[in-house]
Amino acid sequence: MLRTLIFGVTGYTGIELVRILSRHPHVSIIAGSSRTWADRKASEVFPYISSDNNFPITELHPLLEKPDADVAFLALPHGDSAIAARRLLDSGVRVIDLSADFRLKDLATYESWYGKHKDPGLLDRSVYGLAEIHREEVRGADLVANPGCYPTTVILGIAPVTNVNGVDTSFPIVDSKSGISGAGRGAKLNTSFCEAGEGFKPYGATGHRHIPEMEQELSQLFGKKITVRFTPHLIPVSRGMVSTIYLKVSPELDDGHLREVFKQFYRDEQFVKVLPKGVFPDTARVRGSNQVHIAVEIDGRTHFAIIMVAIDNLVKGASGAAVQNMNIMYGMEENTALKALPLFP
Amino acid sequence: MLRTLIFGVTGYTGIELVRILSRHPHVSIIAGSSRTWADRKASEVFPYISSDNNFPITELHPLLEKPDADVAFLALPHGDSAIAARRLLDSGVRVIDLSADFRLKDLATYESWYGKHKDPGLLDRSVYGLAEIHREEVRGADLVANPGCYPTTVILGIAPVTNVNGVDTSFPIVDSKSGISGAGRGAKLNTSFCEAGEGFKPYGATGHRHIPEMEQELSQLFGKKITVRFTPHLIPVSRGMVSTIYLKVSPELDDGHLREVFKQFYRDEQFVKVLPKGVFPDTARVRGSNQVHIAVEIDGRTHFAIIMVAIDNLVKGASGAAVQNMNIMYGMEENTALKALPLFP
Amino acid sequence: MLRTLIFGVTGYTGIELVRILSRHPHVSIIAGSSRTWADRKASEVFPYISSDNNFPITELHPLLEKPDADVAFLALPHGDSAIAARRLLDSGVRVIDLSADFRLKDLATYESWYGKHKDPGLLDRSVYGLAEIHREEVRGADLVANPGCYPTTVILGIAPVTNVNGVDTSFPIVDSKSGISGAGRGAKLNTSFCEAGEGFKPYGATGHRHIPEMEQELSQLFGKKITVRFTPHLIPVSRGMVSTIYLKVSPELDDGHLREVFKQFYRDEQFVKVLPKGVFPDTARVRGSNQVHIAVEIDGRTHFAIIMVAIDNLVKGASGAAVQNMNIMYGMEENTALKALPLFP
Amino acid sequence: MLRTLIFGVTGYTGIELVRILSRHPHVSIIAGSSRTWADRKASEVFPYISSDNNFPITELHPLLEKPDADVAFLALPHGDSAIAARRLLDSGVRVIDLSADFRLKDLATYESWYGKHKDPGLLDRSVYGLAEIHREEVRGADLVANPGCYPTTVILGIAPVTNVNGVDTSFPIVDSKSGISGAGRGAKLNTSFCEAGEGFKPYGATGHRHIPEMEQELSQLFGKKITVRFTPHLIPVSRGMVSTIYLKVSPELDDGHLREVFKQFYRDEQFVKVLPKGVFPDTARVRGSNQVHIAVEIDGRTHFAIIMVAIDNLVKGASGAAVQNMNIMYGMEENTALKALPLFP
Repeated sequence: MLRTLIFGVTGYTGIELVRILSRHPHVSIIAGSSRTWADRKASEVFPYISSDNNFPITELHPLLEKPDADVAFLALPHGDSAIAARRLLDSGVRVIDLSADFRLKDLATYESWYGKHKDPGLLDRSVYGLAEIHREEVRGADLVANPGCYPTTVILGIAPVTNVNGVDTSFPIVDSKSGISGAGRGAKLNTSFCEAGEGFKPYGATGHRHIPEMEQELSQLFGKKITVRFTPHLIPVSRGMVSTIYLKVSPELDDGHLREVFKQFYRDEQFVKVLPKGVFPDTARVRGSNQVHIAVEIDGRTHFAIIMVAIDNLVKGASGAAVQNMNIMYGMEENTALKALPLFP
Repeated sequence: MLRTLIFGVTGYTGIELVRILSRHPHVSIIAGSSRTWADRKASEVFPYISSDNNFPITELHPLLEKPDADVAFLALPHGDSAIAARRLLDSGVRVIDLSADFRLKDLATYESWYGKHKDPGLLDRSVYGLAEIHREEVRGADLVANPGCYPTTVILGIAPVTNVNGVDTSFPIVDSKSGISGAGRGAKLNTSFCEAGEGFKPYGATGHRHIPEMEQELSQLFGKKITVRFTPHLIPVSRGMVSTIYLKVSPELDDGHLREVFKQFYRDEQFVKVLPKGVFPDTARVRGSNQVHIAVEIDGRTHFAIIMVAIDNLVKGASGAAVQNMNIMYGMEENTALKALPLFP
Repeated sequence: MLRTLIFGVTGYTGIELVRILSRHPHVSIIAGSSRTWADRKASEVFPYISSDNNFPITELHPLLEKPDADVAFLALPHGDSAIAARRLLDSGVRVIDLSADFRLKDLATYESWYGKHKDPGLLDRSVYGLAEIHREEVRGADLVANPGCYPTTVILGIAPVTNVNGVDTSFPIVDSKSGISGAGRGAKLNTSFCEAGEGFKPYGATGHRHIPEMEQELSQLFGKKITVRFTPHLIPVSRGMVSTIYLKVSPELDDGHLREVFKQFYRDEQFVKVLPKGVFPDTARVRGSNQVHIAVEIDGRTHFAIIMVAIDNLVKGASGAAVQNMNIMYGMEENTALKALPLFP
Repeated sequence: MLRTLIFGVTGYTGIELVRILSRHPHVSIIAGSSRTWADRKASEVFPYISSDNNFPITELHPLLEKPDADVAFLALPHGDSAIAARRLLDSGVRVIDLSADFRLKDLATYESWYGKHKDPGLLDRSVYGLAEIHREEVRGADLVANPGCYPTTVILGIAPVTNVNGVDTSFPIVDSKSGISGAGRGAKLNTSFCEAGEGFKPYGATGHRHIPEMEQELSQLFGKKITVRFTPHLIPVSRGMVSTIYLKVSPELDDGHLREVFKQFYRDEQFVKVLPKGVFPDTARVRGSNQVHIAVEIDGRTHFAIIMVAIDNLVKGASGAAVQNMNIMYGMEENTALKALPLFP
């Protein structure tokens, strides 16, 4: 039984970790941290928790003192994560960090997007935990940087074309749409029901913090500098994310061929489904599951490949991927606690 | 491994049975029926189905010929269920029926609400499958009538007061609200997104078909005729149901005492949670789970007990209860495949 | 041209006043107040404001110094309203107050629900501005207490039975459901999209502050003490309110007769529509309009009248009613700026 | 008083015409047609219609016999529109057609996307009714082809750059998102609440019928062939549309300059608002209004202009634009009946 800590357990990714891990046969949640709901039992915060999952919730710092656990999930703001990670690693606890603190390998890049790093010495020790790309490195890691939600869709949507002739990957145009839980659980006017419901809007056009992460990974995969043109939008749903990716292709490239390339690339990946021609990914068909649905089309009129990727931003985009990483780190079946079908409708 | 059939597998309760049973370690779905999507594999209809769950879908009738199965779930329109049930029972298949065909013990009552019964001879053989009330009978049954969603909330909300002095149960007033999946999966104008979204309305005030079922069970529990005043409304959510129940009480009856009666009544029920004072049931906190959340308050100004009950209409109100019944019928842990926490948010 | 001030112009009822008044041919908005967005022009806060409506927004207090206006709408928290009202009245500005400060005639009742009153001397001077009931008094008033949204539905739903034999009005049971804008515009966790969306819940069962207002008006109408059993719920829509009202009736009372009583009662009211039998009120069919839709049914099995009332809580439940009152106060056509049909879908 | 007919009055664009025209001081709706709700009065179909707007609804054909009207709006399926238009024009009725029948000037292009044209002889007589571009032609027209919703956003979003150096317009990439009312009012499974709610998906990637319309107008504006890369998606809202447009620009082009170009281009257009830097268009801020909100940003990292355009697809994308055209055709103030501010929230 893995003894597990969840830091930031009352945010949406923390809550989602509780949900997923409650089905995990080899995990026991020992304790969680929360600024807002400290010093309660889980069942006082989540009315649906049963007595056998009823772990205590404390402030952050008490939980870092002599943590008697095997593994910790950090669902903390960036900065806080770096500090907590060091303490946990020093106590022999393996760490899966859902913040951005260890995703960027280049310190200068990190600091230009996020400000001063709280523990740059750990950057080299961390592994970028997108299992479909870095599975082997995750296996031995004691500090895993869980990928951002947007980068998960973009990297998985572009990675298969690495060796395809006739695809211009130098300038992917990515138009992404995210459910509102991506903005976190704090009370904010712009994510209130009346402001965000029955609406749809872009919320940035030039500088989302997830861009350097996409570019780092794609540049590494393609062995050249990739610059991503990225626009995020807000969908009035709690969960769900779709990225629509545009890549210029040569007129010879065939849609059926390209789809086959994707199928081959993901043939051993149980969470990634390449959809048949004419079927489009829908967030409602991945909700609550760790699945990634990808559709690939080539537009013969304009010679563009359009790659559409859907995930649940809280599962494959956050907590599901984190549990997938934990399963890999401990040599368990990779889909343990992650086999649930989507909740549809 | 129980060999299982799902009739009406592409409706919402059928889809939900697939979702729940996909986690069941002792069940294998052999085949399903569907009028609209016959002659396909499940994965062609549900893009998220994995290859190891990929059962065939056929028309209804081929599936009734020599059914080689242990148990069948009927998610069919009433009338069709009665016919299918007979054939299956004759072939030695135990039946859990999600329609109304076997819920009412009195033939005349059934026929006054639903029209001519297609197989009244089976009425005596069936058991009303609300496990919290009829667990022992379900155990030995080969034909279980799975309860309606509204009756589940109403019966569970009123049953605990059977032996409480000072509660007038002769005229419960029940104001219920249901998510739109309760109307089924057919394309209808009044359940289209633009007509039902961003709206709220009663959809009947005097004659919902679930009334006789509530009255039958409550009258039996209380040993006297109970007449329910029932109004259903439509909530713009896919899943979820709340019933707000009003019972006149004597001025002496104390709110804390009444809540304690509920807690005692359900102390061994793992799916029913009686909420602490001041916490109200929310469909968002039971979504996707088999839980029932109940709040009990007494209004000292007006001397009414207000009992508020929330379920997911597709889980505890339909497919989850059906799997719970199956688990009981086969002597398995009652919560097998039903332990999932709610999907929140 | 009436020179108009809107206090609290950036809350939802303030915004709605701007929307409605922008169509009013005899009104000019001179200025508004806002704590959060002071010292801007309206067009900086509302991107859709055109240059000819572009009034200045200031803090509350500067706007109270020598207000050069004819009429002021107070969309302020209770307490603040009382203070502002006195200042405005002293400067000769007529006041329409959307808070609760002047709705309750009995000071002790007010103080038991809201705490100390900031200016009880004004209670006698105020008129309860439900035009359908108090039109004549509104005409001459210089301080109008605009009704609460819930009381509007409840009073209009029960008033017509004043002279009907066989209706027991002593204990109306009222089950109400409100859109989320009713909770105001502040950022709160429980009204955030992810917490309130795809959910439905009661949010109180015994002590909503709108109760004394209902009881005051109904008791006055019926000439006897009326005690209301009231439960509010939250619907996942921005706007809309439905109250379902239960009244015990004698077995002789006929549904067609009762509906006719309602039609007669409201025959000269252009905003109130009594629906034909079998048609139920739907918030989606009143959204954005000042209309009130009422359905009346008698349940012959249980001998209850069920009265269902729908409004847009921000229009007839707040800002529309306020403009209706202003129109009456100034002898204008009562429906000026209020003729817009609902926005459907 | 203009005597007006609305064909297809019970679809969403027909309903919206009724809503908008109900505020028009110079228009009287004489009659409407509907296949599903023929032979009723409007108030039987729309419970909110008042007695003074209560026009009769008939089948299509009776309404085409000797139509005694000045102007007709056709909210009919393509094909049906062409036939009706001829009859009406022959009777001296001016026609505003909301279908696609007269939008494409090139017959072969029409027929390759829509099939055989029912009255190609009228193509030359029609005017493409995007007022901001073709106002003068609309003035004298007796047959106006009202633009599609997607083309409205795309043409208005790109037209201002006609004379800007350093913008590559040959290959606009357009990622569009539409509310569900765009799919019309028929009952369909994929637009039902449970299938489309809490979801988001692309619904085509290579061949939407609105593409030739965008290309025709843009090619004409730019004096060269423009090919649009277009992907439509479905947003879970009733109303609203956002197009995000990507244009490659030269590194010298400045964001402030480009925004200024847009402001100049639309300086006399009362329905088009170019938003300040950092403010993004939101469907919730145009809902129910005829406004177009445009944000312009240049991404200095990738040298792309990102132009984001929001409208209400039923207003500026359909019925509002149609009324705007009527106002122009009859020399009335262009914003008559179109001044309403958005319904927010």
